[in-house]
Amino acid sequence: MIICLFLPGKLKFYRKNPGRVYLYFIKTSGGVSLAFPLPPSQRLLMLPLCKGAVAGCAPIFVADVDLTSCIGKNVVCEKATTAVDSFKMVAAARYYPQLLSIMGNTLRFLPAFVAMRKLLVEGYVGEIQVCDVRVYGPSLLDQSYGWTCEELMGGGGLHIVGSAIIDLLSYLTGTRAHRVHGLLRTFVQQKNLIRGIRRITSDDFCFFQMLMGVNGSAGVCCTVTLNFNMPGSFVHEVMVVGSTGRLVVRGTQLYGQRNGSKEEELLLGDNGWAGPEVKEMPLPYLQGLSSMVKALRQSFQAHEERRSWEWGPVCSAPTFEDGLYVQTVVEAVKRSNSSGEWVCVEVMSQEPDPNQNLCEALQRNKN
Amino acid sequence: MIICLFLPGKLKFYRKNPGRVYLYFIKTSGGVSLAFPLPPSQRLLMLPLCKGAVAGCAPIFVADVDLTSCIGKNVVCEKATTAVDSFKMVAAARYYPQLLSIMGNTLRFLPAFVAMRKLLVEGYVGEIQVCDVRVYGPSLLDQSYGWTCEELMGGGGLHIVGSAIIDLLSYLTGTRAHRVHGLLRTFVQQKNLIRGIRRITSDDFCFFQMLMGVNGSAGVCCTVTLNFNMPGSFVHEVMVVGSTGRLVVRGTQLYGQRNGSKEEELLLGDNGWAGPEVKEMPLPYLQGLSSMVKALRQSFQAHEERRSWEWGPVCSAPTFEDGLYVQTVVEAVKRSNSSGEWVCVEVMSQEPDPNQNLCEALQRNKN
Repeated sequence: MIICLFLPGKLKFYRKNPGRVYLYFIKTSGGVSLAFPLPPSQRLLMLPLCKGAVAGCAPIFVADVDLTSCIGKNVVCEKATTAVDSFKMVAAARYYPQLLSIMGNTLRFLPAFVAMRKLLVEGYVGEIQVCDVRVYGPSLLDQSYGWTCEELMGGGGLHIVGSAIIDLLSYLTGTRAHRVHGLLRTFVQQKNLIRGIRRITSDDFCFFQMLMGVNGSAGVCCTVTLNFNMPGSFVHEVMVVGSTGRLVVRGTQLYGQRNGSKEEELLLGDNGWAGPEVKEMPLPYLQGLSSMVKALRQSFQAHEERRSWEWGPVCSAPTFEDGLYVQTVVEAVKRSNSSGEWVCVEVMSQEPDPNQNLCEALQRNKN
Repeated sequence: MIICLFLPGKLKFYRKNPGRVYLYFIKTSGGVSLAFPLPPSQRLLMLPLCKGAVAGCAPIFVADVDLTSCIGKNVVCEKATTAVDSFKMVAAARYYPQLLSIMGNTLRFLPAFVAMRKLLVEGYVGEIQVCDVRVYGPSLLDQSYGWTCEELMGGGGLHIVGSAIIDLLSYLTGTRAHRVHGLLRTFVQQKNLIRGIRRITSDDFCFFQMLMGVNGSAGVCCTVTLNFNMPGSFVHEVMVVGSTGRLVVRGTQLYGQRNGSKEEELLLGDNGWAGPEVKEMPLPYLQGLSSMVKALRQSFQAHEERRSWEWGPVCSAPTFEDGLYVQTVVEAVKRSNSSGEWVCVEVMSQEPDPNQNLCEALQRNKN
């Protein structure tokens, strides 16, 4: 069996599994997608042996990939650009409930977050009050102009990193955001190779708050700060504060402190990353990817005939419904940035009619 | 010459200056103020020798203290509770322009922030983009019920710590906030000794954003996170990110990193604090207080006759006008928390008429 993994940009990651489930990681350039596929990837996908695809190309192409090329395949895919695209993917996945269709948020598979979730469920921090996330790092932009520069194509800190954090927080707390407030800024609008009439529209500083839990109750306050104007450093910190203690994941390590104790304790160390170092992918995402690939392998190896897959190893993965929720929150944060107000998160339950205005006009003429 | 320093609560801090400027630190309990003064403090203030007072009592009494007891004295005072009180203090201070009247935000005197300000002015970080502040620590509440539990009396993280941060950020960036957005939460509403019909109304989690600089331009985005549900830890971090580098003060130490370099460098170390340790006052505030007292001493010692004072050593101290601005921002954040919207910061230029409604009613009757 073959599963193709299409990963964005410069990620050089190639591996064969001795257990006869072949995982092909195909290097696609930022702007090329399966909608205009490279010959080898297309050939792979056409093979009856190929049972699945991992779409990790530019967000603007994700929905195309999943809807056109992957009919009848198991799919692990990156986030789409808009909630409407996500909704189409959810609808498509419902036709094939027996096939695997998960979103590729690798953070959920990182051992530190798996352990954090376990401790949260066990009540280590008591009642969850505040989640505080900060991700600081160098610019997310490509050297030359591409989708990363364009907000509408899925570029920017909120879309690339923020969506993974939104998904992670709903996984950790077990609840969803009902109201959000956000602020986006593009401090760097032109660069060495991106100048002239071209301007960067994707955000490099993003701050948003989410009120999670049941509407009306105090619930959980989440604050997320993303700053990608800090070359030479990488900070990835997720803290959950509760009534009786707190847990924090710094990079790939989990620390905890109960209210009575005087010092923070290391709950889960690094264990040393033996895999490759990838400059473009920070360690928490890379280690998470590695764990996700292992989980996928287990999931498919569980069945002797390898035509089907096991739910167990990938049960923590986000579904397409989760992807739609994440995309809805991302759009709510963008709306809040324009309006300056808190925005309610309302997940789409039916596809908006693109011809609604036209229909209404026709209706009026008819009367 | 004698200067009385009235400091809140449990601060035991007593010192005599060999240079014949006596600094008396008088321990006042949380609820007792100079408006109802303890006999020894009153006697000290009445002495013609006593040329000044430092009012550090509960915020609700600050305006009373400054307006009633300190006529004709040099005054260093804590923040008042409301912008109206601050405005009265500004007006009172204008009667005595030759007397010293400064707000007691000790952070401005902390060597790390003095050095940070110097580097910011010299252009270490280029154009300032983002300020990110977080203060995490144990509860600010007293054991028993008192002003710290009551938002209207000046309790809560926003009022106690947030106001010092607001002042500090305007000092560091040299600009003022024009729009703010905030979120306040009181997670702990009752405690061991505070229960029954009594509820805590002061915030223990506070998050606010300030847009600073000239209105209309991108300006500086400031995000401030205060969380006082974290017993056993104290984090005090002020980070300024600019176009060519960043500076961060962690506790009392200053670190910096320019965009080209690979590692953060320590720009100003701790030098070891030889003074007393005060459980109720975190080190940055305590060291700042120590520096402020030194600056005050220098300021008064500069003149031979010690009846006057020198502007130089205390030139970085916040004026009462700065105090009014800070109080205005605090109230704007509170309004934003209720309305959920961005609130413009408009500093009062004349005292609101407390009888306005009455006057309007009379006017209507007359017509």
